[in-house]
Amino acid sequence: MFDKAVPDFSLYLVTDRDILGGRDLAGSIEEAIAGGVTVVQLREKTLSSLEFYHLAREVKAVTDRYRVPLIINDRLDIALAVDAAGLHVGQNDLPAAVARRLLGPEKILGVSAASLEEALLAERDGADYLGVGAIFPTATKSDVRSVALEDLQKIKGQVKIPVVAIGGINQNNIKTVMETGIDGVAVVSAILGKDDITRAAKNL
Amino acid sequence: MFDKAVPDFSLYLVTDRDILGGRDLAGSIEEAIAGGVTVVQLREKTLSSLEFYHLAREVKAVTDRYRVPLIINDRLDIALAVDAAGLHVGQNDLPAAVARRLLGPEKILGVSAASLEEALLAERDGADYLGVGAIFPTATKSDVRSVALEDLQKIKGQVKIPVVAIGGINQNNIKTVMETGIDGVAVVSAILGKDDITRAAKNL
Repeated sequence: MFDKAVPDFSLYLVTDRDILGGRDLAGSIEEAIAGGVTVVQLREKTLSSLEFYHLAREVKAVTDRYRVPLIINDRLDIALAVDAAGLHVGQNDLPAAVARRLLGPEKILGVSAASLEEALLAERDGADYLGVGAIFPTATKSDVRSVALEDLQKIKGQVKIPVVAIGGINQNNIKTVMETGIDGVAVVSAILGKDDITRAAKNL
Repeated sequence: MFDKAVPDFSLYLVTDRDILGGRDLAGSIEEAIAGGVTVVQLREKTLSSLEFYHLAREVKAVTDRYRVPLIINDRLDIALAVDAAGLHVGQNDLPAAVARRLLGPEKILGVSAASLEEALLAERDGADYLGVGAIFPTATKSDVRSVALEDLQKIKGQVKIPVVAIGGINQNNIKTVMETGIDGVAVVSAILGKDDITRAAKNL
């Protein structure tokens, strides 16, 4: 559906059904893609495995239609079950090296990093890109460690793989973040928390 | 480590750390195996993926030492990550057919069934054994459907794969359950809820 070798991480959407206020997730993702989202990460922490599987299939039908890669957060079983483009693991999920071994070489593997040490380890262990943050305070994820802009820039300078910044990024601060030379920004609220999702994505 | 073709399901332990009252899980499993447990299913619903992975590795070191198969509940990713003997899925987990496809033919796949219809479907979709229950009311799992002894016997008569009964089985009622002709019983509290885990397993 897409070329793993040259993924476009410029506008990376991470889902959160809670901030949709009852709006349909698959439909909201379609609106976000219409606004320019280039990657979608499906993040679910409370569903049963069966519910997650069905939701992931539904979302993948949308992302496939627009040839946008779908990345599953944390759950390698769901990623394999729906043949997603890839998996994103945080520091409390499966170790990157284990995930890479089970995913095989063709799937995209993203890893969250909040320090240079974590970033270098993830790259060594097979990550295809890094999610680095939280850059700014964020309401959608609690107990996250913060990463200063200068540390983000330092990480970008030390790794070869793409770096996506995440955490509290919005229309007001996106320019400052992009000026560090990173490859893209990941957002949740700045798109899914808005009434006009397509316009919110376009504005970013 | 064991022969998938002839697994011994006679005394099947399902874990629950909550009823251990702070006792070590891997150590308790070792005591249960000393008492005659033939299969161990690791069931965790609240751990992070990383914690589940580390715990599963720790438990597998014990089960491997005694050549007892380790089955992971629900999480196919964890089962693959630790190279467990198999996976057990309930009706809210990945569909059996999907799990079978991802596990390959060599791993054991168990499926929970509370009706003849679910049992036949699971067998058709690739289950190697069935967990049927809850036979009696149980404190370790809420909102479960109950299965009468005559329905358990009916299921056993209609499927070719082994049937393990689960739910509230203890020293007092195990004989009645085994008289239905099933292949084994799965217990939680009747072993892990006791002070002397080895003796509790022996008594069953």
